[in-house]
Amino acid sequence: MQITDIRETAIPLNSNLRNAVFDFSQMTTSIVAVITDVIRDGKPVVGYAFNSTGRYACGAQMRSRFIPRIIDADPDSLIDEARDNFNPEAILAAMMQGEKPGGHSDRSVGIGTIEVAVWDAIAKIEEKPAYQAIADRYNPGGAKPDMFVYVGGGWYAPGKGIPELLDEMRGYLDMGYTQLKMKVGGAPISEDIERLEAVLNLVGNDGWNLAVDANCGLTPDEARAYAGALAPYKLRWYEEPTDPLDYALMTELAETYEPPLATGENLFSQQDMRNLITFGGMRPNHDVLQIDPPQSYGVVAVARTIEMLHGTGWAVGSSVMPHGGNQMSLHIAAGLGMLLCESYPNTFGMFSGFADDAEIIDGYLKLDPDRPGIGFESQADLYEVMSELSSN
Amino acid sequence: MQITDIRETAIPLNSNLRNAVFDFSQMTTSIVAVITDVIRDGKPVVGYAFNSTGRYACGAQMRSRFIPRIIDADPDSLIDEARDNFNPEAILAAMMQGEKPGGHSDRSVGIGTIEVAVWDAIAKIEEKPAYQAIADRYNPGGAKPDMFVYVGGGWYAPGKGIPELLDEMRGYLDMGYTQLKMKVGGAPISEDIERLEAVLNLVGNDGWNLAVDANCGLTPDEARAYAGALAPYKLRWYEEPTDPLDYALMTELAETYEPPLATGENLFSQQDMRNLITFGGMRPNHDVLQIDPPQSYGVVAVARTIEMLHGTGWAVGSSVMPHGGNQMSLHIAAGLGMLLCESYPNTFGMFSGFADDAEIIDGYLKLDPDRPGIGFESQADLYEVMSELSSN
Repeated sequence: MQITDIRETAIPLNSNLRNAVFDFSQMTTSIVAVITDVIRDGKPVVGYAFNSTGRYACGAQMRSRFIPRIIDADPDSLIDEARDNFNPEAILAAMMQGEKPGGHSDRSVGIGTIEVAVWDAIAKIEEKPAYQAIADRYNPGGAKPDMFVYVGGGWYAPGKGIPELLDEMRGYLDMGYTQLKMKVGGAPISEDIERLEAVLNLVGNDGWNLAVDANCGLTPDEARAYAGALAPYKLRWYEEPTDPLDYALMTELAETYEPPLATGENLFSQQDMRNLITFGGMRPNHDVLQIDPPQSYGVVAVARTIEMLHGTGWAVGSSVMPHGGNQMSLHIAAGLGMLLCESYPNTFGMFSGFADDAEIIDGYLKLDPDRPGIGFESQADLYEVMSELSSN
Repeated sequence: MQITDIRETAIPLNSNLRNAVFDFSQMTTSIVAVITDVIRDGKPVVGYAFNSTGRYACGAQMRSRFIPRIIDADPDSLIDEARDNFNPEAILAAMMQGEKPGGHSDRSVGIGTIEVAVWDAIAKIEEKPAYQAIADRYNPGGAKPDMFVYVGGGWYAPGKGIPELLDEMRGYLDMGYTQLKMKVGGAPISEDIERLEAVLNLVGNDGWNLAVDANCGLTPDEARAYAGALAPYKLRWYEEPTDPLDYALMTELAETYEPPLATGENLFSQQDMRNLITFGGMRPNHDVLQIDPPQSYGVVAVARTIEMLHGTGWAVGSSVMPHGGNQMSLHIAAGLGMLLCESYPNTFGMFSGFADDAEIIDGYLKLDPDRPGIGFESQADLYEVMSELSSN
């Protein structure tokens, strides 16, 4: 049993969306195919993944460093004999050979994307969904396949006013979502508050069902001003007020802003996450920790981060969510028993959303227990590109 | 006045050295040539740099993101009109377009290497050494062209015992160096202490002239054990005991290990450095902060980090040094008035050391005030490769 080839290619996101910090017009993402010699349904099992959104394609690092380290390893060293399957911990360790400590984001995205594709293969070999393969190994509490999902939306776009914003948000409610998130920080604060009130008026907020996201785009003074302006609205969370590494300011905000804060998607290692909870003033089981698994070394590393949280007062089911609304984050959230999952319907083209036939009912999405792997096969446009990568 | 082309290529380091964490056999580095249309001595001015040591070549990021952002910018927007030269702050800002906050190392090495090459060009345009061009802009106290340099050596290598270690260290003393550093953590602690005592016996330690470097290779318990074992020797510093982001452990060590600690070369941003001094327990003007400029966004970013240190009790001249023993770190240390500079004679092939005719006298190296730029032209082997990159 061995990995026979790993292929990658870069795809432009082709998005004209904008948040508080930048537009996505030049953004690219890497897709990966991990090809094995294990046969299921008469064909070699192939695992797929892509590197989520917001970090650029990283194929060069994969080709020059991570892929050869796997292909050149003794195949037997990458096997979990007890499970007769690939060993994701050994594969992660192989990719980390020759890497200096610290400086995570140079490699965490490339390694994480390959690692998540390995999990797609592992689950397909076991003929079970990825969430189940993950839960079997890392979640004694069992998977959470009935997953609450919310929409990360409320984007800025050229010419977009409040009526168009409400059209966007109404569309999500019509799809069955009950919790929404909107961008702030890309307009003057008074205009953002008008946008916020308009959306609150649409969704109602009895269930704390609106969150806001500043995407690290505020200066410290602006972050404080937004905290003051947002506090009365009892939002589900106030996300990434400022620089993701500004733990001192997060501590200050947590002391004055009573409703939940959220951050973490722009930290990429267990070490950084530990610093956030140790020095960032974050309140266990009140604030929300956000992790992007394919950008943070993958499933094994995220499972270890959750293990690190044990004993610190943080519970994965009430505090941790994945960044990135896609099939990968959905399965990983369900497998590890996270609080909820993000969704980006229609936002990033073929990289958006979940299975083409996924239904959201009262904010919940039921993962199909009969589809093996991560289930990219149920996303027709994306699977066409992925399967092309692994054919010939 | 404009930058007409930026070229890069990856070069293998071809080193068989080893520290506590990994060997350098697969390590590569990027070299960069920034070609301008400014004429000096009848030829276009070209700035050169390489990405220091320990982080892999990053040409793909340069080609797909940072180089086009400079070449596609309005050339006038990159000019410092008052100085009739390129504006390194504007060039840095151009390279940062479209980059998400956090996740520094994915880009800080590529951006920093290009930025340092821009400084080589800036100084050549002003027909002065790089240290002077840097001091003119960022160091009101004036440059420090008579620079104390120490050798980062004492490497592990296959078959290398104490006699060979002493030969290595004796060689440095014969070159004129008075302060040395040796690796620890790549052997059992008792063996490392034997190595240390042998070297101390050679160099004497009245002037605290031996430092040790664990390259983040110790577990927390090992880091504590080494602290206990090393403390009686009054070493110049105990460098990178453990993970560079483990601020909690650094705080603990600083409370129990009295002599100076050193760390920072595996942090790549001002935000991380601020966290280190805020949460890492580091003692101002006692411990040592280490920054690798070409790996940390370059000269402008390091100057801003030093500005951030003002008011925190840290003084650049008593606490800050560059990682990387090369012409770039030498000029940047001299320009910004840092404590001292590292040297790697003969260690990384053509990327080692300083000008071919540099003389070390009682530990000091006098930079030549008549050589414009960073002075790679005075390193024959390296300049041959660099100038080939810019010729066509």
